[in-house]
Amino acid sequence: MDLVRTHQVVFTPSGRRGWVTEGSSVLDAARALGVDLDSVCGGRGICGRCQVTVGARPGIDANPDRLSAPGSTEADYHGRRPLLPGFRLGCAAHILDDVVIDVPTESQVHRQVVRKRAGVANLPVDPVLRLYYLEVEEPDLASPTGDAERVLAALSGQWDLDGVSLEPGPLSELQAALRQGKWKITVAVRSHRVIGVWPDFRDRALGLAFDIGSTTIAGHLCDLFTGEVLASAGRMNPQIRFGEDLMSRVSYVMMNEGGSLRLTQVVREAVDALIGDLVIEAGVDREDVLEVAVVGNPIMHHLFLGFDPRELGSAPFALVTTNALETPAASLGLGIHGGATVYTLPCIAGHVGADAAGAVLSEGPHRQVDLTLVVDVGTNAEIVLGNRERIVAASSPTGPAFEGAQISSGQRAAPGAIERVRIEPQTLEPRLRVIGQEMWSDEDGFAPEQVTGICGSGIIEAVVELFLAGVVKADGVIGERDHHRLVPSGRTFSYRLHDDILITQNDVRAIQLAKAALRAGCDLLLDRLSVDRVDQIRLAGAFGSHIDPIYAMALGLVPDCDPDRVSAAGNAAGVGAMMALLSGESRREIEALARRIEKVETAVEPRFQEHFVAAMAIPHNIDTYPLLGRVLTLPKAEAPGRTRRRRRDP
Amino acid sequence: MDLVRTHQVVFTPSGRRGWVTEGSSVLDAARALGVDLDSVCGGRGICGRCQVTVGARPGIDANPDRLSAPGSTEADYHGRRPLLPGFRLGCAAHILDDVVIDVPTESQVHRQVVRKRAGVANLPVDPVLRLYYLEVEEPDLASPTGDAERVLAALSGQWDLDGVSLEPGPLSELQAALRQGKWKITVAVRSHRVIGVWPDFRDRALGLAFDIGSTTIAGHLCDLFTGEVLASAGRMNPQIRFGEDLMSRVSYVMMNEGGSLRLTQVVREAVDALIGDLVIEAGVDREDVLEVAVVGNPIMHHLFLGFDPRELGSAPFALVTTNALETPAASLGLGIHGGATVYTLPCIAGHVGADAAGAVLSEGPHRQVDLTLVVDVGTNAEIVLGNRERIVAASSPTGPAFEGAQISSGQRAAPGAIERVRIEPQTLEPRLRVIGQEMWSDEDGFAPEQVTGICGSGIIEAVVELFLAGVVKADGVIGERDHHRLVPSGRTFSYRLHDDILITQNDVRAIQLAKAALRAGCDLLLDRLSVDRVDQIRLAGAFGSHIDPIYAMALGLVPDCDPDRVSAAGNAAGVGAMMALLSGESRREIEALARRIEKVETAVEPRFQEHFVAAMAIPHNIDTYPLLGRVLTLPKAEAPGRTRRRRRDP
Repeated sequence: MDLVRTHQVVFTPSGRRGWVTEGSSVLDAARALGVDLDSVCGGRGICGRCQVTVGARPGIDANPDRLSAPGSTEADYHGRRPLLPGFRLGCAAHILDDVVIDVPTESQVHRQVVRKRAGVANLPVDPVLRLYYLEVEEPDLASPTGDAERVLAALSGQWDLDGVSLEPGPLSELQAALRQGKWKITVAVRSHRVIGVWPDFRDRALGLAFDIGSTTIAGHLCDLFTGEVLASAGRMNPQIRFGEDLMSRVSYVMMNEGGSLRLTQVVREAVDALIGDLVIEAGVDREDVLEVAVVGNPIMHHLFLGFDPRELGSAPFALVTTNALETPAASLGLGIHGGATVYTLPCIAGHVGADAAGAVLSEGPHRQVDLTLVVDVGTNAEIVLGNRERIVAASSPTGPAFEGAQISSGQRAAPGAIERVRIEPQTLEPRLRVIGQEMWSDEDGFAPEQVTGICGSGIIEAVVELFLAGVVKADGVIGERDHHRLVPSGRTFSYRLHDDILITQNDVRAIQLAKAALRAGCDLLLDRLSVDRVDQIRLAGAFGSHIDPIYAMALGLVPDCDPDRVSAAGNAAGVGAMMALLSGESRREIEALARRIEKVETAVEPRFQEHFVAAMAIPHNIDTYPLLGRVLTLPKAEAPGRTRRRRRDP
Repeated sequence: MDLVRTHQVVFTPSGRRGWVTEGSSVLDAARALGVDLDSVCGGRGICGRCQVTVGARPGIDANPDRLSAPGSTEADYHGRRPLLPGFRLGCAAHILDDVVIDVPTESQVHRQVVRKRAGVANLPVDPVLRLYYLEVEEPDLASPTGDAERVLAALSGQWDLDGVSLEPGPLSELQAALRQGKWKITVAVRSHRVIGVWPDFRDRALGLAFDIGSTTIAGHLCDLFTGEVLASAGRMNPQIRFGEDLMSRVSYVMMNEGGSLRLTQVVREAVDALIGDLVIEAGVDREDVLEVAVVGNPIMHHLFLGFDPRELGSAPFALVTTNALETPAASLGLGIHGGATVYTLPCIAGHVGADAAGAVLSEGPHRQVDLTLVVDVGTNAEIVLGNRERIVAASSPTGPAFEGAQISSGQRAAPGAIERVRIEPQTLEPRLRVIGQEMWSDEDGFAPEQVTGICGSGIIEAVVELFLAGVVKADGVIGERDHHRLVPSGRTFSYRLHDDILITQNDVRAIQLAKAALRAGCDLLLDRLSVDRVDQIRLAGAFGSHIDPIYAMALGLVPDCDPDRVSAAGNAAGVGAMMALLSGESRREIEALARRIEKVETAVEPRFQEHFVAAMAIPHNIDTYPLLGRVLTLPKAEAPGRTRRRRRDP
C-alpha cells in the first residue's frame, strides 16, 4: 500500500487553504484552490509572474524549507520580471510541509494598482484578455490535423481552456509563428477568441484609453496587466474646423452631403495620430496595442463610431444605441494590432454620454454612502447625483459661455487668458492672474501685454467679485457709478478689467444664463431625490479643473454643500475610460449602472423653467463668502437675492 | 363565470396537434404547437408566407367554415407571394371549430427543395439567417433609450427573440432605416446578431455558393429561403498565370516575396467579378447577398482566405485549420452586403479539402447503406469511401496526366480536344469525337482541321481501345507491328491517332502512372474497410463528367463495381457548397462528418507502393469489356494482367 503524504497550505492574503499532495508545485496548489496566482508560461519557469514568499501564521512558521530548495529552473531564470531576493517561482517551488504562501499584489491577475500619473488613487485591474504560452504538437503526416486544431488542443490541455476559436487574423499568422517559435507560441485570448499569436514567449499587452472631447482628445497608453500608464498625450480635435461647438458640427452634418463621414474620418485620423504620439513616447510598437476604451459625449461617440449624429441635434435626441459596444479596431481605421477591440462605454441618455458614464465610473457616486454630485461642464453640463441607493442624471443646456464663448473678450482657457480676478471693493481696482504667467498682475515681472482675453473661470470670478464690490446687483445689473473703471455703453455699463478687456452687461447676462441652466439642472435632480443639499460635489473636466470651487459656490453654480467637500475631479471621464480599459469588472459595473441611472430630461420637466428663473439671481451665500475673504455689505434698500442655503443640522 | 371555448387543431404533414382557444389565429396556434409555419411580417398580413389550406381527417371534414371567413386583411393582401385560390393567410384566419390545417412546403421554413438547375434532386433548406419585420416604438424624450434598444425590444416582444446584438454596420444604418420606414423595418438576424436592416417590409435574402477550382471558379446565386437558383456562372481562375497546376502556384509563393498575397488578391478579384456576372444575370443587387458558402481544394481554400499555402507544398502538409470557418465577407474584399458572412466548408486533410467535403455532403455516402466510392480527380485525386457505418478518405498523387498535361498532344477538355476514341481491332483505324463538334470523325460534316489535341477522357479511351486491339500490352508496352499507324520513335512505337496527334509510349506510361496512383489510393481505402469491391462509384468533377465510366472501369481506374452503378456525379463539390449555403443543418452535418472521417495518408502507408506497382498493369476486366462491345483476345503467350474482379455472389 502506498501512502500519499499531504500537507496543509494556506494562501495569503486570500486566506484560501486546503490539503495538497507532498511535492505539488505552489502554482498547482494555487490553481486547485482557486487562488489568484498569475502565470503566462503555464509553469515553465519563463514568465516569473508566479513569484511568492513563504509566510507564517500561528502554528506554521516561515521556515523556507517548507518548500523544496531552489533548483535549476530558478537558478537559470532570467525572465523580464526579476526574481526578487527571498522570492520563489510558484511553478518551481514544491510543497514539502504545511506552509503559508504569501501572494504579493504583483503576482495576482486581479488587483488594485496605485496610479502615479493619471490623477486617481487605485484602479482595479481585471484584464479583458490574457496571454497564454503554449507548446504545440507538431503536425504529423499520419494524423492530419490543422495547426489551429493543435493550438486549441494545447489551450485545452495546458490551460483547461475550451470552446475557443481563432479569428481570421491569427489564423493567417499562425503557421509562421509556430515555425518561427519552434512550436512554442504565445496567444492572446479574449472572450474565448484567439485574437493574437506570437512566436515564443511574450508577457506584455498594451491598451489605450481615449477621452474624445469636442475640443481636445486625450489618450493614455497602459500596460493591460500591470495597469501602469506608459504615456499620456493629447491632440486638438480637428473637427473644430467644421464647427467650434457640438451643435455647429451637427449643423455641418445636416447641411453637407457626406458631412458625417468627413467628421468621422478626421476624428479617427486624429485618434490614430495620437496613437502614434503615445507609442513613440513609450517606445513601444503599435502592434503591441490589443485593446482600446473610449469615452466621449454622445455626438463625439457617434461620430467616432461612424454613426450619423443628426438625430442628436433635435428632440427627442435619439441615440443610435445607449449600450456599450465592442467594435474591431481595424474597422475604425486605427493602426494597432489587427485583433484589437475598441470598447465604448455606454451612453446614459441623448445628452449624457459615454463621457458622463466614464466620470460616474471613476467618481463612483454609486459606491458611496454620501450623496455626491458630479458635474461636467461643456456646451452641455452633464450632471449626475446620487449615492449607492439611487442615481439620477440630467443634462443642462449651459451653452458655451463657461468656455469663454459669447463673452465680449472671452477665450478658451489657454495662455494669455485671465483666469483669476480679485477686485478691491473700495477702490474697484482689479488684480489678475493670467494663464502662462506665474505672478499676479500687481507683482513684479507681470507682463500686461501678454493678456489676450478672459476664460470661463476668470469671468466667473469677475462677476462674483463685482457682486461683492456692489458693482453688480443681485439681479445682475451693473449699477451706474462715477468711476473710471465703469464705462457707459448705450444704456448699460461695462467694467474695464484690463486695457480694452471689459466685463459688459451682456457678459454678466451670459454668465447668469449659463449658471441658471446648470443650477436648474442640479435643482431638478435634488427635487427628484427630495433633498436640498448634497454631501459632496465633484467638478469634472477642464472647466472643473480651472474654476475655484469657492467661486462656483459663491455664484450659486452648484447647490449648497460643505465648501470643504467641493473639489475638482480632473479628467474623470478619461480616468473612467482607463478603468474600463483595465477591468472587465469595471465594464460590467458601468453597463449595469447606466441602465439603472434614472434619466431626468430637463426639456420636458415643468419645474426646470421655474428653477431656471430662480437661479438667475446672484445669491447672498452667507456660508461661502467669508471663505473668499470678503464681507458682503449690500445697500439696505436692495432686495436680497435668493438664499437657498440653510444651516446644516447639528 | 366565463367559459372559454377550445378546439382541437391538427397540423399536417407534421401531425402536431393540440387544443387552442376559439378565435386563435392559425399562425399563433402553429407557434404554440411548435409547427414549422413561416412568417416574416409576424402576422401582419404583409408577407404571405403563412399560407395554409383546410384539410381533413377522420372525424374532421374540410369545411372552410372551421376557420373565420376571409376578412379585410386577406382581401387587401397584395404581397409578393400571391394568395392562391383556396389558401388562407395563417395570421388572418381564426380557428372557430376543430380543424385540420395543411401546411404546404412553400409555407415551411425548413423544407426540401426540388432543384431544376444545379443538377441535383432535393436540397434541404434550413436558412442560417432569418428576416424579421418589426414595428418599433418611437423615441420619447421622457424615457431616453437608444433606437437599437427599442429594436431589440421589438425583436423580443414581437418575435420572442432575446439575447440579440446589433453589428456595427446595421447600427450605423439603423436610424435612417427607422425614419424612412416610419418605424417599420425588417432586420436580418444570424446567430443572434442583427447583420442587416432595411426600411419597411422585405422578404428576400440571397446567397452565393462558390467552388473555387485551380482552373475555374463556378458560382451559383440562390434565394436563401426558397432555395431557388437564380443564376449560375463560371470564370477562369486568374491564378493560372502564376502557375498551371497547384504545385507550381505553391512554388510561386515560395519563390516570390508577397506571392501569397498576390495570389489571394487575384482569386478574390475573380470571385468578386463573378459575383458581378451573377447579379447581372439575375437582375438583383450585390447588396441583396447576405451569405456565401465556399468550397475548394486546400490550396485554393487557403489562398482565398488569405492563408499562405506554403506548408501544403511539402510533408506533412499542415493545414492552417481543418475546421469550417465563418469570415466577414467585407474582410475578403467581396462587394456584397456589409453584414454578409463567408462560410468555408471544413477541410478533411492536407490534400483532401473543402471541395471533397462538399462532394461528400452532396453525394452523402454517410447517409447510405451501400458502400459508395466518391472520386474527384484533379492534380490530386480525392477519394472517399464508406457508408453510414464508417467513412475513410485519402488523396492520391495522380499528377496532371488526366487533365491532358504530360501527354505529348494533351490539352484541357476544351473545344478541339479529342474526347472519344474508338479503334477497329482488325484495321486499327480510329474513329474520334471532338469537343465542339456533334459528329464522329467518320460522319459527314466532321471538320478534321479543328482537332487541336487530346484531353484526359480521350487518352484513356485510346489506351483502352489500343489494349483491346492488342496494340498495347497488359504491361503498357506498344508492341512492334508493321502498320502505317504504328510509328517507330527511337526504341519505342507510337500510334498515329489523327494527323500529327500521336499516342506515344510515354503517353501510355503517363496514363499508367496516373491510374496506378488513383487505383492504389482506392485499394488502400478498400483495405482499410476490409472489402474488395464497392456497391457504387461516383465520379465527381469535370474529369468525372467527361470520362465514360465504362472506360474508367476497363482501364482499372476504379475498383470493381457493378458497371451500372458507376456514374458521373457532376460538380458534386459545388452542389455541396450550395447545400451548405442553404442549410445550417447541412453545415452541422459536414462539420461533424469531417471530424469523423478516417484519413488515410498514402505517403506513409507501406501498402500504397505495393498497390501502386500492381495497378500499373492494364487489367483483363472480363465483366466490363463486353459492355464496350469488344471481345478481348490476347495472344496466349502473354502473361495476363491483374484480374482482381471476382464474380458477385448470387
